Formats: sequence, C-alpha cells, structure tokens
Amino acid sequence: MGAERADEAAGEWAEVAPDAAQRLVGAAVEAFAERGYHATTTRDIAGRAGMSPAALYIHYKTKEELLYRISVTGHERALKIMAAAAGAEGTAADRLCCAVRAFASWHAERHTTARIIQYELKALGEEHYAEIADLRRQTDRLLREIIQDGADAGEFTVRDVPGTTLAVLSLCVDVARWFTADGKRTPDQVGELYADLVLGMVGARRP
Amino acid sequence: MGAERADEAAGEWAEVAPDAAQRLVGAAVEAFAERGYHATTTRDIAGRAGMSPAALYIHYKTKEELLYRISVTGHERALKIMAAAAGAEGTAADRLCCAVRAFASWHAERHTTARIIQYELKALGEEHYAEIADLRRQTDRLLREIIQDGADAGEFTVRDVPGTTLAVLSLCVDVARWFTADGKRTPDQVGELYADLVLGMVGARRP
Repeated sequence: MGAERADEAAGEWAEVAPDAAQRLVGAAVEAFAERGYHATTTRDIAGRAGMSPAALYIHYKTKEELLYRISVTGHERALKIMAAAAGAEGTAADRLCCAVRAFASWHAERHTTARIIQYELKALGEEHYAEIADLRRQTDRLLREIIQDGADAGEFTVRDVPGTTLAVLSLCVDVARWFTADGKRTPDQVGELYADLVLGMVGARRP
Repeated sequence: MGAERADEAAGEWAEVAPDAAQRLVGAAVEAFAERGYHATTTRDIAGRAGMSPAALYIHYKTKEELLYRISVTGHERALKIMAAAAGAEGTAADRLCCAVRAFASWHAERHTTARIIQYELKALGEEHYAEIADLRRQTDRLLREIIQDGADAGEFTVRDVPGTTLAVLSLCVDVARWFTADGKRTPDQVGELYADLVLGMVGARRP
C-alpha cells in the first residue's frame, strides 16, 4: 500500500464533519456490512459509535440519511477516480489501463464500503437515488468515452461500446464482493491483472 | 426465451418437495431479496407462503436451513452448467464460449436467486458453508481447466490462469447485480456479449 493510499485509508470519511458525524458513518458502514441495511437499527449504529440514539439524531434524522451520506461519498470518490483517468495524458489504452487499475484497486481496498454502496441502492429514498444514479451515469460516460476514443482511433476492436463499458465497470465493481484482505492478491495486484485483462477485452493487449 | 428455459423458469424449485416446502423456498427467495437475510423473519416467510409459522417449522427448523436449501440448489445448478460446458466437444475456445454464455445468461435469468446465493454466504452455518464452498471450488476448477487447456494448446494467451478464471467467474456472477428484466439486453444477449469479451480476455477473439 502506497503512502498516499494509507493516508486515504485512515481518512476514508475525513471529509465528514464534525467528528461525531464521522464516527457515526464509520459505525453505520460496519453495521450495514455485517447485517444488511434493513436489519440495522439507528440504535445499533449509535451503540457502535459509543453514542446515544438521541445524539445520533442530532447528525442524521434517519438511517436512510446515513446510507445516503455513505453512498454519495463513495460514488463521488469513484467518479473522481474515473475522471482522473479520463483526463490523463496518453493513448486510449493508457487511459483505460489507468482507469481500470484505479477503479479495481479502489473496490478491493474499500470493499466494505463498496459493497454497501453497490448492494443497498434500492434502500435509498427517491431523490437520493436520483442523485446517486446521476453520479453513476457520469462515471459510466467517462469510461465509455475512453473506450469509444480507442475504437475511433483504431487502437481497440470493440463490437459493442456500451456493452463493453458495462462489462468493464461490472468486473471492477464485483471485486468488492470477492476481495478479502487476507487473500492471495493485494489491491494493486488486482488492478494490474484487471488492466491487462481489459486490454484483451477491447482487443488491445499490452506487448 | 427458449422452451427449455421457460420450463426451467416455471420450475426453478421443482426439485424441492413436497409442494409446501417448495412454496416456502419461493417465499424465502422473495423476502431475502427484498430486505436481506437478517431482516427477514420466519414469520415473514410463512406469511408470504400463506402458511403459519408452525407449518413452516415442519419443513424447515430454521431460517438458515431455508437459506442453505436455496444456496445448495443454486450452486448445484451453476456447477451443472459449468460441467456441461467443460465436458462438451470442441476446442477450448468453443468450451469457454459455451461456459460463459450459459453461466452469464443463468445469472441474468435467475438474478434474484443468484444475488441471494452470492451475497448471503456469510449467513450460512459452518458446515453448510463448507459444503457450498466445495461446490464453488468445483465450478472454479472446471473453468480453470478449460482456460488451462486453451493456454496449453496455444489457443489462448493467458498470463495468470487462476487470476483470469477468477475474473471470468466474477464477470458472470456480477450480472446478477446489474441485470433487470426490463433492461436493454435479454439474458441470451448478455451471454453472447460476454462470451465474445471473454475470448478477448484470453487472447482468442472470434473472427
């Protein structure tokens, strides 16, 4: 794990303020991951954070508000990763490698959070869901543009750009399901493996 | 949807007998899919099946036993699909296409069941988990052997056979997360798309 990533790991929820709200988000992630959103009560979350239900209520009016906070933070982070890759210098293959490496390794590193933001979407309220769906569409579009650029430049051989985009995102997202910290591969190794496999998918294998 | 698949759809749980036990399994799948395993009670399940909790207890002593029944049936079905592909005639590429087409389209067609068997593994008891883990290892091994055969025969260019096997399985499994019956692609179309993309991953794109 690089120093930058270690810093990020320590501060996954650093942007959530004040400190009590940040602790509640961490507690909610743990609880949702263990038992699922619907089986978790705000009382469980407050207890894990060492707070009373009344103290929780000061920061989050509902359990859904906590899920939304986790979901929006996670999806914004995922979009930022994709935007950095899409905006980088180099060929479409370079940008695609960069995107897949970062996106897959993020889903490994942050597998607990990623599972929640991917599997509990249905539990979001209508407006919150619409906001998250928009972030997801932006992420999808950035990846699709990289793949389209490569196809247009003759770097890639792609029969179905939206379908390939969907498959590449899906491959990276599912890392959150199977990845365990005590497994055979580090997040960086997963990123490397996947970048190579995806270049194969788009017909642009690295030499 | 072919006639064979329609029959299978009608009888997803046909092998579960007697009829009351079969109805309970169907009700449990619905309930787990909507609210998650931990938030579902045996009372919820019995109610959905139009039965009393006491009547449920005749067939399943615990909620975990129902999850196990769903999980073992689903995993055996997945293994059977993979075994059929692995045992088919033809080149490694033919068998890989066949495996991916069948495995991906099954995860689309049976996305509700597949989500439960993939996401609620942790909720299984120790012995049940061990049995399911063994079925998963068998499925994994069959796919790995196809990929290894193709690499040995020079049909495929694969740098990391276990890693590629993991990625191919993961790609197919994650169909269960994103697939919706009202989406752009049918299960068969997903299977076709994925077979082509996976041939690219192993460096054996179809002409």
